Amino acid sequence: MKLQLALDMLSPEEIIKIIDDTKEYIDIFEIGTPAIVLNGVKQIKKIKEIYPDVVILADTKIMDGGKVETQYAIDCGADIVTVLGCASSETIKNSIEVAHKNNKKCLVDLIEVNDIKKRGAEIVKLGADYVCAHTGIDVQKLGIDPFEDIAILSEICSASNLAIAGGINYDTVDKIIPYNLGIIIVGGAITTSKNPQEEAKKIKGKILN
Amino acid sequence: MKLQLALDMLSPEEIIKIIDDTKEYIDIFEIGTPAIVLNGVKQIKKIKEIYPDVVILADTKIMDGGKVETQYAIDCGADIVTVLGCASSETIKNSIEVAHKNNKKCLVDLIEVNDIKKRGAEIVKLGADYVCAHTGIDVQKLGIDPFEDIAILSEICSASNLAIAGGINYDTVDKIIPYNLGIIIVGGAITTSKNPQEEAKKIKGKILN
Repeated sequence: MKLQLALDMLSPEEIIKIIDDTKEYIDIFEIGTPAIVLNGVKQIKKIKEIYPDVVILADTKIMDGGKVETQYAIDCGADIVTVLGCASSETIKNSIEVAHKNNKKCLVDLIEVNDIKKRGAEIVKLGADYVCAHTGIDVQKLGIDPFEDIAILSEICSASNLAIAGGINYDTVDKIIPYNLGIIIVGGAITTSKNPQEEAKKIKGKILN
Repeated sequence: MKLQLALDMLSPEEIIKIIDDTKEYIDIFEIGTPAIVLNGVKQIKKIKEIYPDVVILADTKIMDGGKVETQYAIDCGADIVTVLGCASSETIKNSIEVAHKNNKKCLVDLIEVNDIKKRGAEIVKLGADYVCAHTGIDVQKLGIDPFEDIAILSEICSASNLAIAGGINYDTVDKIIPYNLGIIIVGGAITTSKNPQEEAKKIKGKILN
């Protein structure tokens, strides 16, 4: 189980600071969609110059133009690129193709996909490295969470190919640990805590035990 | 009918050059998703410094974090922001709310929405300024186009609130003109032509007549 830290509403400088603080405990740093919307994937170049060995996921949430957008993210240093499960299969296929040609990986985000079992199985067939159960921040506020989705997705692919995101913190992570998933994604619980390093260490400790 | 030019795989410098060349004939310049993925909405600041009166649509294709991402685009100078029809209604509502608070507009992109009539009607109710029939570049290659969708969407809202995108050029624009839509979006047909200014002028001429 890898621990991924989502860096969403942070400036490039703040992202570099938090990577420096937490890199001992984080396996994958996610440059979140808001950070990409504001500053683009180009900001990843500088991060990779400073920390060439850090694994970076670009949360591009690609909906179309799978080849071009995947290539942009990879050219800037991304190791994993995200595509939406709501995108056409053609787009997902194109993103996976470009990612694999570059020896990189593709995570398909099932956010707002209605039938995650059916669509998830199609996406696994397309060759996605990871499929991600994800409850968006806007609907988390309505009391929705992604935990039940993991049981459903466990029926269609290996747990090592599954990721989960959506309001996960030191307490709720307990519900996921038994599944032994590929990636557990934590965001605000670490980035907005008083001591991000300590919080990352605590969550990582749970995952390792 | 407004003519929108989608600027997709262009550098910030190329975008400024094409705006300069074509601004006499273009009503709305779209900073396309690939350009945003690479360089972020921050690039809009410079465009607005040079051309404060040009109308800019940021094709952010928001899927989550409606408030934050809409605000980022508007703070950088966008006049219209795009949200995905596949996003949760909560996200769409949040984007519209922030856009309207700032006296800006929100276009909801129906790309990959299955039931465009049903979902389109829901989105109109949420207060979207525009709903857009859109066939993505990746599936255009499979021979799919957005022209029939316009007849369907004309049943659920005023033509002035409709936009269309997906492989529109000097020839195919004839199919749309009779609908008297709010926005016709053209991309590659102008940006990849030998003479973008001349091509923009020709298409604009058809729309005006």
